[in-house]
Amino acid sequence: MIDKLIDKIIATDNPSVIGLDTDISYLPDEIKKDISSFEDAAKQVTIFNKNIIDAVCEIAPAVKVQIAYYEQLGVAGMKAFSDTLKYAHQKGMITIADAKRNDIGSTASAYSRAFLSGMEINGKRLIDFETDFLTVNGYLGSDGLNPFIKDCKAFDKGIFVLVKTSNPSSGELQNKTLSEEDGVTLYQQVASLIKEVGKDLIGKYGYSDVCAVVGATHPYEAKVLRNLNPNMFFLVPGYGAQGGTAEDLKVCFDKKGLGAIVNSSRGILCAYKNEKYQGLDYAQAAYQATLDMKNDLNRVR
Amino acid sequence: MIDKLIDKIIATDNPSVIGLDTDISYLPDEIKKDISSFEDAAKQVTIFNKNIIDAVCEIAPAVKVQIAYYEQLGVAGMKAFSDTLKYAHQKGMITIADAKRNDIGSTASAYSRAFLSGMEINGKRLIDFETDFLTVNGYLGSDGLNPFIKDCKAFDKGIFVLVKTSNPSSGELQNKTLSEEDGVTLYQQVASLIKEVGKDLIGKYGYSDVCAVVGATHPYEAKVLRNLNPNMFFLVPGYGAQGGTAEDLKVCFDKKGLGAIVNSSRGILCAYKNEKYQGLDYAQAAYQATLDMKNDLNRVR
Repeated sequence: MIDKLIDKIIATDNPSVIGLDTDISYLPDEIKKDISSFEDAAKQVTIFNKNIIDAVCEIAPAVKVQIAYYEQLGVAGMKAFSDTLKYAHQKGMITIADAKRNDIGSTASAYSRAFLSGMEINGKRLIDFETDFLTVNGYLGSDGLNPFIKDCKAFDKGIFVLVKTSNPSSGELQNKTLSEEDGVTLYQQVASLIKEVGKDLIGKYGYSDVCAVVGATHPYEAKVLRNLNPNMFFLVPGYGAQGGTAEDLKVCFDKKGLGAIVNSSRGILCAYKNEKYQGLDYAQAAYQATLDMKNDLNRVR
Repeated sequence: MIDKLIDKIIATDNPSVIGLDTDISYLPDEIKKDISSFEDAAKQVTIFNKNIIDAVCEIAPAVKVQIAYYEQLGVAGMKAFSDTLKYAHQKGMITIADAKRNDIGSTASAYSRAFLSGMEINGKRLIDFETDFLTVNGYLGSDGLNPFIKDCKAFDKGIFVLVKTSNPSSGELQNKTLSEEDGVTLYQQVASLIKEVGKDLIGKYGYSDVCAVVGATHPYEAKVLRNLNPNMFFLVPGYGAQGGTAEDLKVCFDKKGLGAIVNSSRGILCAYKNEKYQGLDYAQAAYQATLDMKNDLNRVR
């Protein structure tokens, strides 16, 4: 799947992913005021997402759908999550479900069926939350990752494993140095684990389907990781609202300007609230903000 | 919430939690054969769970509902997850949603709304997946935990943070020694983080609402952790099917026989397939297996 993602990045000349973290607070006031149930909220979030996808599907390669904002709307929210993934796929975009799932092997298999491979029921393959890529937390080690990797092979999918996250306290554990590993930090050790489990899934561009989440807010760590494993593709959150700049991101890209995809959520979804895009509706503003982000990123890669 | 859980453990004289990891392969053949959609599957899983809850609600304090087995059944599965939590609550059981959620602060807040605090929509508090306790992964550090902890205080809830998981490869990262921390391992460092963020939430039994997941398959680590933080209550998976024995668990309990709750899933749900419980239907077998587990655990605590 990594090859398809990179194909799309090249075709759109855009290394950015549109983060559909659609909290209802992001919706325009005139829509928000009529919401009084999860069903209302889920319906409006779905309409908003579809309009955003229509606006950006020709100029951006992928969407990242943050499941937490759908789970908070209960069962109806999960339907909106499913519908959003399906619509983005139908519009030709690569989909990333940002769910950071993790568990012991047997349970990781169930998660993988939920998002990657589907359930076999009476000879039919059924799946509501199908995605091209899933984010995963590696704290449980390799046997918590292997079920996902097995399905990456069998169903042409990919995963992004959390390596160095964008939040302020990410260093509390991730930047600790490991005594047995000769000065290697925890986040580097996770990257080594990814290298090992992803080595058989390297595609035509030299990147593996087993990828990494590396925050834009940590350029030093991104540089270390880019050098550590040249086969590891990055999903980079933290650009824009969280403080990461295009200059911070330069280190994430390889010499060909590939190797990373950069997420923006609020910066795109809420662009219509920004003075810069005054007079545009939310879909028009998202379109313009996506072009501006593309140009900003293309300056540095 | 930890006080209510311990009250229930004392009232039932039973430190075990019934794991509703209800994969459809656990259902009796005569039920399974008619399932051909997610809706069918979710309906049958809900009926099965309700019958199990009816059977054990007087003799066990809590259920642990593993969300992965519901996500794999899509939107209908999420309704079954919601209905199962609500039914267990209605029957007076403490509920643990085993979801291992984790993200940056703003997104962790959305997860916390999904499972603990609910959404405020037009002045109403709405929540489909409400649970007394939620399992959480601490890889992102304290600012990924704080939103949950804030809601533990405000809504009388609890969390179990993954410390030392029960799976074979858990040591790959969790048992690494940290150079800066004077020989402390990663799992111990997570336990220290829990101690710090949970210190204001200690109840009448001396345990905090911020608890730990500690696998039954690792008695050495459990002993280290019991000594490291006497205020940290344990959720212990890995008993039975995964290989942990009652003897392994002795170290998890304090001098009063409190301090831990032990999960069994397959051992209870699939007891009816066990020769030992021949002639009993699945609910009767679950009842008997719960009593047998209680007696086995009470031998050692």
